[in-house]
Amino acid sequence: MYYPEPLNKLIIALGKLPGVGPKTAQRLAFHLLNAPPGEARDLVTAITEARQKIHYCSVCGNLTDRDLCSICSDPQRDSSIICVVEEARDIIALEKTRQYRGLYHVLQGAISPMDGIGPEQLTVKELLGRLSEREVKEVVLATNADVEGEATALYLARLIAPMEIKVTRLAYGIPVGSDLEYADEITLARAFSGRRQIK
Amino acid sequence: MYYPEPLNKLIIALGKLPGVGPKTAQRLAFHLLNAPPGEARDLVTAITEARQKIHYCSVCGNLTDRDLCSICSDPQRDSSIICVVEEARDIIALEKTRQYRGLYHVLQGAISPMDGIGPEQLTVKELLGRLSEREVKEVVLATNADVEGEATALYLARLIAPMEIKVTRLAYGIPVGSDLEYADEITLARAFSGRRQIK
Repeated sequence: MYYPEPLNKLIIALGKLPGVGPKTAQRLAFHLLNAPPGEARDLVTAITEARQKIHYCSVCGNLTDRDLCSICSDPQRDSSIICVVEEARDIIALEKTRQYRGLYHVLQGAISPMDGIGPEQLTVKELLGRLSEREVKEVVLATNADVEGEATALYLARLIAPMEIKVTRLAYGIPVGSDLEYADEITLARAFSGRRQIK
Repeated sequence: MYYPEPLNKLIIALGKLPGVGPKTAQRLAFHLLNAPPGEARDLVTAITEARQKIHYCSVCGNLTDRDLCSICSDPQRDSSIICVVEEARDIIALEKTRQYRGLYHVLQGAISPMDGIGPEQLTVKELLGRLSEREVKEVVLATNADVEGEATALYLARLIAPMEIKVTRLAYGIPVGSDLEYADEITLARAFSGRRQIK
C-alpha cells in the first residue's frame, strides 16, 4: 500500500525470519536498500552458497560442505565414544567447551508424538548401524533437558541397553554462576540427588 | 573454526544487519539453512530485486520502482503544500496518519556538521527549485525533533522566508496516551507554551 512493490516483497520475506516482526523487517529492508552494494551482494551470495554447499555429514549428520564433516574426518578424535545430540547446532555448543574429543551423532530432532515425529523420522537407524559396525564403548545422550529430549534419551537408552555399550546422560544441576535462589525446584532436586563428594 | 566455511560466511553477512548480534546471526543462518527452498530463494530474489528496482523519485526523493513515486503521480494530492522530511521512511509514518493529502520532499538526511553533512549533501537545491517552479502555499518542516532536525528546520525556514510561502513546523507536545509523570521537562515545557484553547 504505502511501499513500492519490490520493497513490500522484501519486507515480507524478511518478516519470515525467526524473531523478526514487521517493524524489524522494515528496518532491515531499509538498511539493505541503503547499504553499500557489496554488503547486499555478499548477503545474497552467502545465502545462496550456504544453501548449495552445506549438507549433512554422511556419517554423523553434522553440517558440512564436504562428504565427511571436520569432526568425522579428524583422525585425532576418539572414535570409541559417540555423543548423541538433537541438532547440528548443539555440536557447536559442546565443541566450545573443549571438553569432548569423541565423535557425534545428530538425530535431526527429538521424538515428539504431538508433532508426529517418531524414531523413524530421526537418524536412530543410522546410529544403531554405527554402534554395531564399530568398536564403540560409550554413548553420551546429550539431547535437550525438555520432555521430548528426555523421552528420546530414555528410548535410545533402552534400545542400546542389550548392546553392552555404556550409556550416559549429561549431568543435571544448577548452572555455573547462578544463584540457588533463582533455580527452579526440579533443577535443584536433580542437583541435590546428583551431588558429588569433594575430594 | 567450528562451522563449515559457507555457513561461517552466512553468519558474518547476517551479523552486519542492524540489531543482529552473533547469536541472532547464528540463529538466522540455521533457519535459512533449514527453511523450505522457496523461503530462502524468495529472500534472495527480494533483496536482489529491491536493490535493482527501487530508487528515488525524480521529484520528491521518495522510494519508488517507477520514475515518479505513487504520491507525486497521484492527481488527487494537493500540490500546493509540501511536507519536508529527512528520510523516505518518514513518509510512511506520516501517510499512516491519513491526515495529510499534500506532497513530500525527502532531504535524504539532516544538516550535521559533525558528520560533514551540509545543505549541499542534502536535496535542498531541489526543494528550492520546486518552490520557485510551482504554486506552493505552505511548506511543513517535518524533520526530526533532535538537534540535527531542529537545525535543518531552522536553516530551511530562513531560506524560504523571502519567498512568501507559509512555513510551519510539526507541533511539539506530550505523546498521546502517555503519562505526564514520564514526560521529560523540555517536552513538557514545549507542550505548555504550545497549549491551545478548548472550544
